[in-house]
Amino acid sequence: MRISQLAATTDVPVATIKFYLREHLLHEGVLTSPTQAQYDESHVRRLQLVRALLGPGGLTVAAARDLLQHIDHPPESQHDLLGIAHHAVHRPVPEDLDLGAAEKLIRRWDWQIDERDRDTPAALADALRGIANADFTLPEGALDRYARVMAEAAEAEIADLPTESAEAAVRYVVLGTVLVEPLLLALRRLAQQDASSRRFASAEEAAD
Amino acid sequence: MRISQLAATTDVPVATIKFYLREHLLHEGVLTSPTQAQYDESHVRRLQLVRALLGPGGLTVAAARDLLQHIDHPPESQHDLLGIAHHAVHRPVPEDLDLGAAEKLIRRWDWQIDERDRDTPAALADALRGIANADFTLPEGALDRYARVMAEAAEAEIADLPTESAEAAVRYVVLGTVLVEPLLLALRRLAQQDASSRRFASAEEAAD
Repeated sequence: MRISQLAATTDVPVATIKFYLREHLLHEGVLTSPTQAQYDESHVRRLQLVRALLGPGGLTVAAARDLLQHIDHPPESQHDLLGIAHHAVHRPVPEDLDLGAAEKLIRRWDWQIDERDRDTPAALADALRGIANADFTLPEGALDRYARVMAEAAEAEIADLPTESAEAAVRYVVLGTVLVEPLLLALRRLAQQDASSRRFASAEEAAD
Repeated sequence: MRISQLAATTDVPVATIKFYLREHLLHEGVLTSPTQAQYDESHVRRLQLVRALLGPGGLTVAAARDLLQHIDHPPESQHDLLGIAHHAVHRPVPEDLDLGAAEKLIRRWDWQIDERDRDTPAALADALRGIANADFTLPEGALDRYARVMAEAAEAEIADLPTESAEAAVRYVVLGTVLVEPLLLALRRLAQQDASSRRFASAEEAAD
């Protein structure tokens, strides 16, 4: 198909497709004349992926490009996939961040974290610092409970990791990390509203 | 204390404090001369809160100002607090977003969601659309499992809601929503690494 048809199929404007081509987020089509290229189903799939990473995934163009290279050339170890996916979605944290409290929790839960990975403990440390800086105290037991429910979700996620190809596994890990995060947060808010409605709305009605 | 001392105490630069004052994120001090004001402990606490909302919370100045007004003038209903907090942290979604799939799930789980709240179902719809657009299929049963673990967390969160004052409740809901989100995501990634390490690292060692 021509670029105009690719645009119509994917609902991505031609100018955006050209930008993705220039930024090497999308592979070139096959030239059929000096000014015309043919695109195929692989371009449709890649465009959907790029849109997902840059849109809901919230990745920068550079992070998306880096990640796509790993999808095209997957690492040998299944376990390394996670590190790559997590690195891509990692938000920078302050240089002077103290990882002490985060590392202590990781030890308490006996979680096996790759020593080379500083990003993910740093994300926990940054979240804890945000809470402490706001002078916000989590209710007793809340942290362990959060760890427990996230471990329950993570256990199933890793058990579901596709093993038929490294490409499928990378895709699952990357998209599962990036795209499921907004899903979890939306579910949490809805579940809170449900719990609040059950607890307070009925009490308020009873008080009327 | 003077503004310079407030800056030293909170580790917030004087220029930033002046910006917060101009933007009505921080209440004025008491003027002791035409060019000098005195600040107190209430300014220290508010500054910590503002930093948390704008930093880890990721709120815009306008959203933070709106939210602080609700903290200063809390609504009468406990249940309304959640809506206000969720509205503040809500990211805009496309106007033409189809809520059908999200509403269907909410009915399936029998979650009680306030009909006036379009934001939170829209956040779920947006997350689902991001997943669908990326041509990413969640493993069978994953969605129900995510809903279940988030419901477990939410149930405890609402049970822990402070009832001694509306101010405390708003603070808990707002900060609990905004500050716990990065915590949950960091915990999920760490728990995934732990699950992946237990599943694959041992298998890879055994294969050596």
